[in-house]
Amino acid sequence: MICWLNGVLGPIEDARIDPGDRGFLLGDGIFETLLAVDGAVRHGPKHLARLSGASGILGLSVPYPKIEIMAAMLQLLHVNQLRLGRSALRLTLTRGAGARGVAPPAQAACTILLTAVSLPPPPLYMRAIVSSCIRSENSISSRIKSLNYLDNIMARKEAAQRGVDEAVMRNSAGNIASASSANIFVVADGALYTPAIGDGALPGIMRAIVLEAAAGLKIPADEGPLTPDGLKSASEIFLTNALIGVCPLIELDGAPVGTGAMGPVTGKLRLSTNPG
Amino acid sequence: MICWLNGVLGPIEDARIDPGDRGFLLGDGIFETLLAVDGAVRHGPKHLARLSGASGILGLSVPYPKIEIMAAMLQLLHVNQLRLGRSALRLTLTRGAGARGVAPPAQAACTILLTAVSLPPPPLYMRAIVSSCIRSENSISSRIKSLNYLDNIMARKEAAQRGVDEAVMRNSAGNIASASSANIFVVADGALYTPAIGDGALPGIMRAIVLEAAAGLKIPADEGPLTPDGLKSASEIFLTNALIGVCPLIELDGAPVGTGAMGPVTGKLRLSTNPG
Repeated sequence: MICWLNGVLGPIEDARIDPGDRGFLLGDGIFETLLAVDGAVRHGPKHLARLSGASGILGLSVPYPKIEIMAAMLQLLHVNQLRLGRSALRLTLTRGAGARGVAPPAQAACTILLTAVSLPPPPLYMRAIVSSCIRSENSISSRIKSLNYLDNIMARKEAAQRGVDEAVMRNSAGNIASASSANIFVVADGALYTPAIGDGALPGIMRAIVLEAAAGLKIPADEGPLTPDGLKSASEIFLTNALIGVCPLIELDGAPVGTGAMGPVTGKLRLSTNPG
Repeated sequence: MICWLNGVLGPIEDARIDPGDRGFLLGDGIFETLLAVDGAVRHGPKHLARLSGASGILGLSVPYPKIEIMAAMLQLLHVNQLRLGRSALRLTLTRGAGARGVAPPAQAACTILLTAVSLPPPPLYMRAIVSSCIRSENSISSRIKSLNYLDNIMARKEAAQRGVDEAVMRNSAGNIASASSANIFVVADGALYTPAIGDGALPGIMRAIVLEAAAGLKIPADEGPLTPDGLKSASEIFLTNALIGVCPLIELDGAPVGTGAMGPVTGKLRLSTNPG
């Protein structure tokens, strides 16, 4: 695989992350995962806008203009022969190397890495558990897509041990935050509910697109606290992220969600957010 | 600087972290920071026992026996000419490279990195603020020394912006958890108080040594919830970690702590935990 590291394209085997990089030592950085289909990047400007917002919060500077990053993504798809089918692009931005310790250096030389890999078709549905791992709505990592993924990793590990695909995570208050790598939506009485950002939901790109689509389709939608009991009484649940799009959750903690198949609201939103 | 990466000693400029390492991409790993004085590692077995406990929780396997890691540390001090004075050793252990995504690989080839740098004398005292950044007692990273340091980094950034050395962090319940890179102790009415692990305090090696020393000195000590008001009414506050030992906090949020100088209980504990 060819990657793009700090402006240089080359085999990933030759690409070197400095052992002093604060991304590696302290999780001091952010990332974006983007979908590309047939060599075209989906929602690139939205992902780069979110990256830009998160880098501002952390005090990182994105070392290349957006247009150069977009060009590098397209080049990466090209040189990796990913011009057909689905691919995942990952953009990682860290504060780079610094002196020992937690305090960030005054002048950081950020590390920026782009990788691209081929993707299988998105799953038709998923099964999940409600995890014992908490996603803290008080952590900065609940609001930005940071490199601090350990709680989510542990949740996903728990899901795998229980034989399912995903883990739904609660926040410190016991309400639902999101899945380990997706936002969550619930349909009840024909209306759509999803945890608010303040409840620990990542401001997902696909989450925002689904909310826009729901408005277009006149489906009432509400962002706010969602309880574990609210999940149990849902007629439909679906998960969203850039790679899976809208994916029905057909089983939760061993019990079928609604009819145990994709529901009509999920179907409409899946169709309207995934043109082609 | 010479580092030790996966069993190989070499210049850090030649050491390469794989861009696919989950420590770099997702903060999927842990670390230890150890003090060495005149070429001798302080409390090595305690640090390695904590590493071993944390690796068990994450499902990582430490790829070398403890005795080899201890030998590598001593060798690292030797080849970096750190046989005199104070040095900091850092041991980083990650889940290594894996397939794209949050789910950990079934079989991980862990990355282990050791570095050593010269240290200045420990600070005689510190000044701090109470940070607006929360350290979540619900996160796994509050109980193990993980690579997920972003909340602590943001707290330390806030401290630097306000012109002080450290940031005291509250937990989700509003109680005190720790400082951004140290545990915290309070003296009130001759007794010692420190947040419990369940309150978001890292199980610090120096924290445990101080509690043992207090027992030896017949100073009553209690682990439990500590409020911001409890800090304000303290006669003494001190911070602990492997590198600073016991360090008096003489100012909090612009107001002097107690007399504004090192108090007698802090002095006794500093002396008894820092032989030489």
